[in-house]
Formats: sequence, structure tokens, C-alpha cells
Amino acid sequence: MKPHGPIPPAYSSDSEGMLLVGGQRVDALVEQAGDTPLFLYNAAMLGARVAEWRVAMPDMVQLHYAMKANPFGPLLAHMAGLVDGLDVASGGELEMALASGMDAAHISFAGPGKRDRELEAAIAAGVTLNLESTGEAERALAIADRLGVRPRLAVRVNPDFDLKGSGMKMGGGAKPFGVDARAVPALVRRLIDAGADWQGFHIFAGSQALSADAIAETQAQTVALAGELAEEAGATPPLVNLGGGMGVPYFPGDQAVDAPAVGQALGATLEARAPVLKNSHFAMELGRWLVAEAGVYLTRIVDRKVSHGETFLVTDGGLHHQLAASGNFGTVIRRNYPIAVAHAFGREPAESVSVVGCLCTPLDRLGDQVALPRADVGDLVAIFQAGAYGASASPATFLGQGPAKEMLV
Amino acid sequence: MKPHGPIPPAYSSDSEGMLLVGGQRVDALVEQAGDTPLFLYNAAMLGARVAEWRVAMPDMVQLHYAMKANPFGPLLAHMAGLVDGLDVASGGELEMALASGMDAAHISFAGPGKRDRELEAAIAAGVTLNLESTGEAERALAIADRLGVRPRLAVRVNPDFDLKGSGMKMGGGAKPFGVDARAVPALVRRLIDAGADWQGFHIFAGSQALSADAIAETQAQTVALAGELAEEAGATPPLVNLGGGMGVPYFPGDQAVDAPAVGQALGATLEARAPVLKNSHFAMELGRWLVAEAGVYLTRIVDRKVSHGETFLVTDGGLHHQLAASGNFGTVIRRNYPIAVAHAFGREPAESVSVVGCLCTPLDRLGDQVALPRADVGDLVAIFQAGAYGASASPATFLGQGPAKEMLV
Repeated sequence: MKPHGPIPPAYSSDSEGMLLVGGQRVDALVEQAGDTPLFLYNAAMLGARVAEWRVAMPDMVQLHYAMKANPFGPLLAHMAGLVDGLDVASGGELEMALASGMDAAHISFAGPGKRDRELEAAIAAGVTLNLESTGEAERALAIADRLGVRPRLAVRVNPDFDLKGSGMKMGGGAKPFGVDARAVPALVRRLIDAGADWQGFHIFAGSQALSADAIAETQAQTVALAGELAEEAGATPPLVNLGGGMGVPYFPGDQAVDAPAVGQALGATLEARAPVLKNSHFAMELGRWLVAEAGVYLTRIVDRKVSHGETFLVTDGGLHHQLAASGNFGTVIRRNYPIAVAHAFGREPAESVSVVGCLCTPLDRLGDQVALPRADVGDLVAIFQAGAYGASASPATFLGQGPAKEMLV
Repeated sequence: MKPHGPIPPAYSSDSEGMLLVGGQRVDALVEQAGDTPLFLYNAAMLGARVAEWRVAMPDMVQLHYAMKANPFGPLLAHMAGLVDGLDVASGGELEMALASGMDAAHISFAGPGKRDRELEAAIAAGVTLNLESTGEAERALAIADRLGVRPRLAVRVNPDFDLKGSGMKMGGGAKPFGVDARAVPALVRRLIDAGADWQGFHIFAGSQALSADAIAETQAQTVALAGELAEEAGATPPLVNLGGGMGVPYFPGDQAVDAPAVGQALGATLEARAPVLKNSHFAMELGRWLVAEAGVYLTRIVDRKVSHGETFLVTDGGLHHQLAASGNFGTVIRRNYPIAVAHAFGREPAESVSVVGCLCTPLDRLGDQVALPRADVGDLVAIFQAGAYGASASPATFLGQGPAKEMLV
């Protein structure tokens, strides 16, 4: 028997034990959607999450949504109405962001491999480019010159530090992201001298950390670095994007980030910032933390079978929608995501089962020997923390399956 | 500096050093396709591979293509004309297989989570279902009864042995695939007694093995098991699908399977088979081995940058098309796939570089500190063994990128 990750505390069931999302029974929502597998995203939880962030953080810090975490149209439009800016990572995401209703002036575009046509689309739309290299900077300047547009350009900095305990390190040593810190001041001067509309810095040291102390320490280092770079460049950055870092609890023993502690420390950090940053704005760029918990993945049991004494619940879902939950994306050791039997939510477990997907590969395992209440063919299994890096970060066409349904409720 | 996997020996370049696929320069093929990233699949190599298999294997063994390895329409239609049968893993693949020109009588459908509507589609089309459990068997019989059709049903067996050295173990102990061997004879009797058109056994112990000895040993065990089960069931299986198992060399030190040795051993195994199998047909079901080497993934360098002394080639491709090559699918330790600079194919390496994709995540690495000839912005990088589990087994929509182009040449 192996443990599973913690069920987010915001979830509950009705008197019959059926899991609720947005106050509605998930079996009714599946009927409404027409089929399983189904991703449900709860608009109210998204709003509450943003509100929680705003209460915790200093007023002067803006909130950006990194839409790579979940680009589902209705969710994106909802988020665009809640946050102060959107961060995109490709020309495709740029189009979606512009369609979401967010003002181009509050969209920024980071990504190490931007093609010329993506740079051109961003410059033409008036979006801020987070430049990843001096080569990209020169390409952007040349394109803007050709278009006759004054480009909005920020510099993405590869810091010498990383985010401790981070699941995804984006800084510290040799990285494909951003410009090594020591080369940044010269690039800022180059941009200003070329007549670009310099927008400031983007400094992203890592993501998916759960320790408030580690995040606070990284933010302090980030603000200090921004000050040093601005001082050396002789220019005040209009905006310092502090990156993200706040993760969510996926696995047994994981604890949610203490957001108020992060906010308190950030307030002190900003209070003590270098004089050159006195008129700068600051932003955090969050993806996973904003949307993961508001999402549930529902899949129906197609078969229940016993092999060599182990019970398998075979579902109609799988790694083609939940690659990370299957343990095949960015994790070395497979551990169980939070998982529940939808109609017996919160009930005591009755047996140890392995929940597998419908794909004909041993990789397709959603729950490995987890303790769950009894479930049979036709019942729904719920995987939590499914709002981020689920549908769009999984190989939907694998084995001819196709994408899951998605619904914002 | 880290090594990369062996370049398949069938590839060569023209006098200028440009990689050729099907006798054509890959830069010309990219121009013809209109863009990068691009998967090229070589029809002649696919034909040669099938021919190699037929020379190596006993005449009485049929060849099935497991289309999960690569379902690209033109490639699938080409393969349908070369092999004796297709194996599908979902209702979606079933539709593609029927559209490929393959006769339904030579299509079989395996997969642990078949929904009722998939069973119905298969039974109605006259496709053979490889039954994964007694529960699925009863569902199939009920659906056939309702349709008034005599269903073609085979039993997938979960053998007590696995394929040694296999990258994907599909047998040995508790598995979601197939029916535990000891329960198979009773299920065969049940199918025959119910009036179904019993098609035989499907026994798949594992895949991606490189040792001919291991494959031969597993095939001997498989044929022996089929004999025992048939004896106990008191019925001769019309077809014994021996599964696959033959892998391809991805990593440094990997050596191609000795196909003639596999064939020779299989000949001896079949020669000595149990009397109850004398009138049985036999098939091997191969995916990766048939199509991997015939595929090349081409991506263009968008940026060349140095960070803390490490040179990065940033490309317009990435893990959204090549999840396995990035080390994020079914592998614990990341190692480099075979990789080359397309315009300097076969030349001596000039530097150590890391080849990364365009995605804004540290997971997106196609070559880690590999020794390559000099390459600059605009040049093409080729990843080999890209014909199997590439385009369809990667999260194409991740970060708003979308699928790669694919072309059969």
C-alpha cells in the first residue's frame, strides 16, 4: 500500500458522498459535459486563489498569470479578468492571450527559442518581449526597425542563484534561459541606446517550491540583483518581474506554501530595495499555484480485474491527459497524486488498488497500490491538482485517444 | 562531454555533407514541407525493414504492425501494403486502420480499457478483439449478441514470465494487461461455448529488448505456454500472436537486435511446438522495430548562445514532438538519442554543445553536452530513431506550440 498526495482541503461532497465541484455533483457535471474523461475547472476557486494572493502580498506587487499552466479558453478569459497581466511562451499562446481580452500592454512573452515571426507578431501587437539572448535582442531590434515600431523589450536575466527546493530550476549556472547576469547591463544600454522602450527585467529562478523561506530568500536575491543590474546600467527598470516559484502539494507529506509568510518577507524586501528601484513596479508570475487546485480530472472505470492478487481499476483516462500524474514528466520517482473515488469522497478506504489508464503501456498508471473506498465499473475516479500542466502538457493523440473534455464551472 | 546514441548506419550525406533521406537532401525536403520542425519517414527504409524481417523469420510467421508506434496516415497506408496485419489500441486507431486499406479480418485490437462503444465498433467491423479480462469478454459477448454478429475474439494472456532486458515489461506478475495464464483455458471454453469465433492467443511479454537470446527465450516460453493453454482448453488456437520485443538502439553502447538469430531460434521453437499447435498460425507484432529507424526529426537552430561557458543551440523543436528523446518518457536517466548537424553529417565534432528545444522549461533538452560539428542559427539538427513514438507520443499542444509537420518520402 502506498500513500497518495493530500486532497486539497477546499473539496467536499454532498450528503451521499459524491464529490462536488463548484457546489455541483461531479456525476451531474459529467452528464452535462457528455463524456469522460473530463477536466473540471472551478471559477470560484480560481477567484478565491487570486484573492488569497492579493491579501497575502504587498499592494505594490502585480500578479501575472503564466498561461502555459493552463491555456483552456474559458479559463484563460476568466483569469484575464482577475490578474494584472499574462505571460506567454509562444506565438500560439500570444494569439490566445490577445483573444482573452487582456490588453497587449500587459502581456509579456518569454521563451528561449522565439522565431522571427513570433518576435514580429509580438512587436506588432505591442507586447513586451522578455529577451533571452543578445542574438534575440538584435533580431528584435531589426524587426522593429523594419516595422517602424518602437518595441517594448525587457531583459530576461539568468541569475547566478537558483530557487532552493524547486522542482524546476531555471537559474544558477549554465542555462538556456535569459542572459547571464554579468552581460545584462551592457544589453540594457544597447536597448536604450537603440531607442527601444525598455521595460525592465524578468528574473525567474525556479518553480514548484513549497518552502516560504526558500521563496522569500530567492525573492530577496532577485530584488538585490535587479538593483545591482539597474545601478550598473544606469537606468531604473519600469517593471521587475520576480518570477514565480510558489508550488502546490502533489505528493504525500507535501505542505502548501505559506503565502502570507512569502508576502510578509516580500514586503520587507521591497521596503529595503535599492534607491534605483524606488520607482519600479514589481510583479510575480504564477501559473501552477493559481490554477492547479481548481482543477479535477474525472475518469470512469471501464474494468475491474485482479491479476496475481493485485486489483486493477482500468479507467477510460490515462497519461495522454495526465502525463505528470503518471510519473512520466519531470519526476524521477513515481509517486501518487491526490486521488479519490468520486462517489465515496472522504470515506474510509476499503482496499488497495492500482488505478491504470486505458493505454496499452505499463507507463499508464494513475494510482499505484493506493488505499481507496470500493469502486466498480462505471464509477468515477478523481485526480486532483489537475488544473495545471494537465490537458495541454500531455500527449493527447497517443494511441489514437484524443483530448479530454474540459469545462469551466 | 556526453556521448550520443549510434546513428543508424543506413543514413548518408551528399558530397557537401548534407544528410540525405530517401536520396534527397533534407534541406530541400524541409523547403518542400514548408517549415520546421519536420518528421521525415522514408518509405524505402520501411520496405527494406519489412524485407529484412521476412528474410530472417520463418516463412510461417506473419508480420503485424502495431500502429501505436506511428499512426501517420501516409506511413500507415504504406505499412498496410507491406505487412500481414495491423494491431490497434483504441477506437481511434481502429478507424485509422480501417481507412488504411487493411482488411478488417487482419486487424486486431488490444488495450486494457476498451469502452463498450469501442468493442461495438470492432465487433461490427469484423475485427479481432484481444480480450483483456473476463469482464471484457462478457461485455463483448453481450454486445455481439445484441448486434447479432458472431464476434472474432482472442484472449490476451498475461504470462508468468517477462522479457528479460526489456524496456517495457508487459508480463510477469500482476499486470493490467490480459488474463492471468491460469484463468485462460476456462475463458477459452467460455468463448467457444458461447458460439464466438475464437481466434487464439495474444501473448505480449515486453518490448524494446536488444538481446536476440532474450527474445528467443521469451518466444520459446510463449510458444510453450500457448501449447499448454491450448491443451488445457482442448482447442487449437487459429493464431498465436507472439508479441513483439525487438527494440532499436537509442543510446550509447546499444547494439541492433540480431534479427537472423531471432529468426533461427524461432524456427527451431516452432519446429518443436506442441502437437495441439500444429495447425496454428503464428504472428509477431512489431511497432518500434519496423518504423523507428526510418524516421528523422529535423529542427532548426533559432539561437546560439553561451551561458557560464556552456554553448546552447536553441531550436524550434523540442519535447512537444520528441518527449522520449528529451528523457521524459519511460526513462529514469536521461541519455542522448542519436543526433547530428544535418549539413555536416558524418564530420568530426568541433565542440560540445547542448541542444535544447524552444519550450520555456528545463526539461526541454534534445542533446546534453554532445560533441557536434559547428552549427549556427538557421542550420538544421537531426534526431534519429524518430519514426516511432515521436509525434503521436508527445504533448504537441504544450506551451501553445502545436504539432510538427510530417512527411513520407
